[in-house]
Amino acid sequence: VDRMIRVAVDAMTAEKGVQEVVHGAIRALKEYPDLKVLLVGDPAAIQPYLKKQKFADRLEIVAAMEVIGMDDEPAAAFKSKKDASVSVAARLVKEGRADAATSPGNTGASLAAATFILGRIQGLRRPAIMTLMPSSHGWTALLDSGAVVDCKSEDLVQWALMGSLYMGEVMGVSNPRVGLLSIGEEESKGNAQTFEARPLLKAAPFNFIGNVEGRDLFNGNCDVAVCDGFVGNIVLKTAEGISKMIMNGIKESFQRGSLVEKIGGLLSRPTFHRFRKRVSADEQGGGPLLGVNGIFIITHGAATRIMIKNAIRLCHENVRHEMVKKLTAVIEAGPGKEA
Amino acid sequence: VDRMIRVAVDAMTAEKGVQEVVHGAIRALKEYPDLKVLLVGDPAAIQPYLKKQKFADRLEIVAAMEVIGMDDEPAAAFKSKKDASVSVAARLVKEGRADAATSPGNTGASLAAATFILGRIQGLRRPAIMTLMPSSHGWTALLDSGAVVDCKSEDLVQWALMGSLYMGEVMGVSNPRVGLLSIGEEESKGNAQTFEARPLLKAAPFNFIGNVEGRDLFNGNCDVAVCDGFVGNIVLKTAEGISKMIMNGIKESFQRGSLVEKIGGLLSRPTFHRFRKRVSADEQGGGPLLGVNGIFIITHGAATRIMIKNAIRLCHENVRHEMVKKLTAVIEAGPGKEA
Repeated sequence: VDRMIRVAVDAMTAEKGVQEVVHGAIRALKEYPDLKVLLVGDPAAIQPYLKKQKFADRLEIVAAMEVIGMDDEPAAAFKSKKDASVSVAARLVKEGRADAATSPGNTGASLAAATFILGRIQGLRRPAIMTLMPSSHGWTALLDSGAVVDCKSEDLVQWALMGSLYMGEVMGVSNPRVGLLSIGEEESKGNAQTFEARPLLKAAPFNFIGNVEGRDLFNGNCDVAVCDGFVGNIVLKTAEGISKMIMNGIKESFQRGSLVEKIGGLLSRPTFHRFRKRVSADEQGGGPLLGVNGIFIITHGAATRIMIKNAIRLCHENVRHEMVKKLTAVIEAGPGKEA
Repeated sequence: VDRMIRVAVDAMTAEKGVQEVVHGAIRALKEYPDLKVLLVGDPAAIQPYLKKQKFADRLEIVAAMEVIGMDDEPAAAFKSKKDASVSVAARLVKEGRADAATSPGNTGASLAAATFILGRIQGLRRPAIMTLMPSSHGWTALLDSGAVVDCKSEDLVQWALMGSLYMGEVMGVSNPRVGLLSIGEEESKGNAQTFEARPLLKAAPFNFIGNVEGRDLFNGNCDVAVCDGFVGNIVLKTAEGISKMIMNGIKESFQRGSLVEKIGGLLSRPTFHRFRKRVSADEQGGGPLLGVNGIFIITHGAATRIMIKNAIRLCHENVRHEMVKKLTAVIEAGPGKEA
């Protein structure tokens, strides 16, 4: 892509407020000279944070006067609030005024806006949220992590096709290993769905390595793991929950410790900082909604400026790698297409 | 219970060997003066480790000349190896020669032996493995964590009944909060199974608090979480996998650190040790198979002596609390009974 990359950012839905989103955008602009950011939302709320920054020529406000909140029922709110910031952001992509969009809001609303406004890739049954989980060796793509519950085996095949392509193209993994998330490595271990899906995955054109277990998401044994969105979302929140519990638990253990331990804690702060940075969701930035006819990155409601910056980076990378074109080709050529 | 509590321990299947099991048993005997341990397995393999210990009068060998290995197909091996150590241990309970049994072997073989030899509690549809997950406030019971995949809603109700009773009786939690593991707290979030199960759980005689998410297993928001064994096993292995990744990652981060950080790491060793001890699976000892007509604790193949000791402690606690009698009563009085 030889021109500016234009990313629409929903500025209204981050829990930490508009300011955090603007700061995230400015960080991204610093990093990418070919980036232009369209801040979508109420100009009166955004404008005050744009003073005294050096990127006026690459930062634009696009007005959207409604907001879908975290407590809104996603589908109903999407229908009734036509001018919601998340919908306007998706529409900018649909109309070719932006190359990609991201929203740190209500996940259901992001799903609705991206799916209904952008539509699906030809032949793709149902889009999936891909999340990159930190592993001891890099990252593991988990999909679906919450878009589709009660999925079909054909969905798993298409998600594996897309995840494998993504890890190869964007993450630079050669011949990505695709696993079916189950309860044991043996073919005999699983549920009705894994038994049905396994032969389809085996026959598909990617490097299928068979069943993988929950621990394989973190030990570098596979690059892509596919599962139903119900399981994937529970896995994601389990991983977030236990990480938080461990990091807080260690902090508390320091607080209860002896003076010597407390000094040890102070001295080892950079260690924790380095580790936390490597595995933090902030660094990953969010998850692409793979399979919609456009680039849309779903990020956390509680996103920090760093996470917003990284969500914009994900948009930038997906545009640069022409992921929609490539995903369309792999779905077109692959098994499991919708009739 | 005013007499000796007799626990049968499968001595042959721990990956760390017979010696580790014997050491675990001796630790338990030190702790519980009313405990008697029956070590089940090949006397020639066990005998050498029994020399020079003070508990000869409370330590007995029961011969079992076959072993089901980790790679054996559980159901087939259970049928063909009648004299397998895990089966002999279960049979001791069935015949009233032991009050409880535990095995650190092949989980499928433990399930088969316990279910077929002990049978189920009257009216109980399918036994579940209960695992206690470490939370910021204590422990959360997760069931089923791998015994039953593709379960029915009535199974979830019975598991919730048993988990709630267990947390109250054994863990001393007053009015345990029972949650249905799902992908959002709202009633509208879930899959076909949670939608069907939710009204049944709401109507049942325990403190049902609605849907809970993966993170609620670790933040103290609920005491019991029920789910299908497919989901539960993936959750359990996800939690184990990410914990290991984090602890190893912090260690590596120290190794890559400056000299100051390395000193910090040395000084803070007791902190980590204390935290690791609090959350380690070793400390919990394993998971009871709730719903079989006898007490059977399933523990890890990789169990250490500490974990074996704690599995024996779990046996002891379950006997002392007369859990089979109480579980039978709660299933008898509860909804969801098998016709």
